Amino acid sequence: MQLLFLGTGAGMPSKMRHTSSLALKLLEERGTVWLFDCGEAAQHQILHTSVKLRKIEKIFITHMHGDHIFGLPGLLGSRSFLGGDEAIDLYGPPGLQEYVETVLRLSRTHLTYRINYFEQREGILCEDEGMTVETAELDHAIPCWGYRIQQKPLPPKLLIEKATALGVPKGPLLAKLKNGEDVRLSDGTVVKSSEVTEKGEPGFTVAILGDTRFSEAAIRLSRDADVIVHEATFDAETQKLATDYGHSTFLDAARTASLAGAKNVIFNHISARFLPEDEKRLLGQVKEVHSSAFIARDLMEFEWHHQTREIKKK
Amino acid sequence: MQLLFLGTGAGMPSKMRHTSSLALKLLEERGTVWLFDCGEAAQHQILHTSVKLRKIEKIFITHMHGDHIFGLPGLLGSRSFLGGDEAIDLYGPPGLQEYVETVLRLSRTHLTYRINYFEQREGILCEDEGMTVETAELDHAIPCWGYRIQQKPLPPKLLIEKATALGVPKGPLLAKLKNGEDVRLSDGTVVKSSEVTEKGEPGFTVAILGDTRFSEAAIRLSRDADVIVHEATFDAETQKLATDYGHSTFLDAARTASLAGAKNVIFNHISARFLPEDEKRLLGQVKEVHSSAFIARDLMEFEWHHQTREIKKK
Ligand SMILES: [Zn+2]
Ligand SMILES: [Zn+2]
Repeated sequence: MQLLFLGTGAGMPSKMRHTSSLALKLLEERGTVWLFDCGEAAQHQILHTSVKLRKIEKIFITHMHGDHIFGLPGLLGSRSFLGGDEAIDLYGPPGLQEYVETVLRLSRTHLTYRINYFEQREGILCEDEGMTVETAELDHAIPCWGYRIQQKPLPPKLLIEKATALGVPKGPLLAKLKNGEDVRLSDGTVVKSSEVTEKGEPGFTVAILGDTRFSEAAIRLSRDADVIVHEATFDAETQKLATDYGHSTFLDAARTASLAGAKNVIFNHISARFLPEDEKRLLGQVKEVHSSAFIARDLMEFEWHHQTREIKKK
Repeated sequence: MQLLFLGTGAGMPSKMRHTSSLALKLLEERGTVWLFDCGEAAQHQILHTSVKLRKIEKIFITHMHGDHIFGLPGLLGSRSFLGGDEAIDLYGPPGLQEYVETVLRLSRTHLTYRINYFEQREGILCEDEGMTVETAELDHAIPCWGYRIQQKPLPPKLLIEKATALGVPKGPLLAKLKNGEDVRLSDGTVVKSSEVTEKGEPGFTVAILGDTRFSEAAIRLSRDADVIVHEATFDAETQKLATDYGHSTFLDAARTASLAGAKNVIFNHISARFLPEDEKRLLGQVKEVHSSAFIARDLMEFEWHHQTREIKKK
């Protein structure tokens, strides 16, 4: 799993930061990519990465502000143009379907694939064998949502040498044992699955949060996460603006991560007022609250390592 | 007057070319900028130029394909965010107003200025003391329009030494003479305007054409123009694609310029299949049809010089 930041700015693009878009790369896990928000020129940013538009399986929109959705029609159109033919699942607030359908209709964009629309709601939003996505409403100027993405425990590992030693022949019996079934060998011996398997490792948990003030819901979604991505539009000096406009400071984001027991926090949705030379100071403001904190930049990628259960900047 | 190309690609963005958008800089002429089409990330491109969003006075859309309009909502929103408060005139095909209003409404974008919508029609689209804009429908897959922008002749020049020699005192009489009125001096002498003025130089004529097959209307709009901007999505080898999809080849564009007696032609809306190293070959294909031809690239700027009546790459 990798988190690839396509746009990390707030409100409008600057020379340094595009507006919000984040790719959750799940190529090893399921061969696909999930997108969180799609600000204008997200598809332009993707041109500078190895992400293929046709690999995008699901798009999650946090809220309807333009800096989070204006890149969606173009990206959908280009995905079609480039031969994408598998359906895409689109999750977001009420109004999203009207937005997409109106724009595609008026711009005569005919997609080669289907869009499955799912309207935002509290709780489990989608779930399959590999992943669960849970949502909760945050505290922004307009309805805005956060996502908790949880990978299910990996399948049990078959200890093949142990099974062979117990006399299990190659073939379907091994698969049954791996899947948790006990089996009887031709000589009558019963081999228990638990004897020849090792429990699968737990999966990762990532929380990707939309625009929000400091919020209980954000803490809930971030509980024990390996990494959370939290907006930090303002800093200590501009705290009042954060409150007025429904945003967070770096400190709000760090407190959320800390209270949730999240291992890492990545600050995102950064105001254009902050320059690279401010990053040291900004991280200093939160060091005592959460020590494993990063400020996202456009095209920065973080990789989660299953063995160490740590994230590293690539 | 300068023509600043923001996006020169066709269909979808590539690493080298953004989708369609062109700024006609009229800062010396009227202190404003006009925009022709507004593909996705036009506002991002503007960040790399000296153009100020609040200086944009009019936006002309050639047609409703996404690669010509998907940057519009973001640009309008940012213009507001940056304190633009003067109304903007928006010209385009039916559907444009519905597009803009729906997207602004659903994205909760509240503009600090008014948009005046003008629906596309044949003939004079707008006219004031300085400029006339005329339109005609081209020949594309969907309704698509071209624009002929004509600067009116500059005001007559007052030959001030000649007027003084004839006894005209400093003050309002000079202004009258400049404006074409004859005046009577205090000693009864009549001084004719024509004696002390020189006719103003003719203005420039630019044709900016949307997507089109080779078209009579394009020739009409380009008649005797100083420069025309014509799409050239395909080349001689891909002529059939041009016909099928409603586009032109470099040769079609050059023929249009030549038949119209236009002095310069700039090829625009270039397919991503063409690379910088192909430009020499592509210009070679048209050399005999029109010798003053340029291939636009993103952020390329052409300046029109009033004295020489020539355009030059800046
Ligand atoms: Zn927002
Ligand atoms: Zn088109």
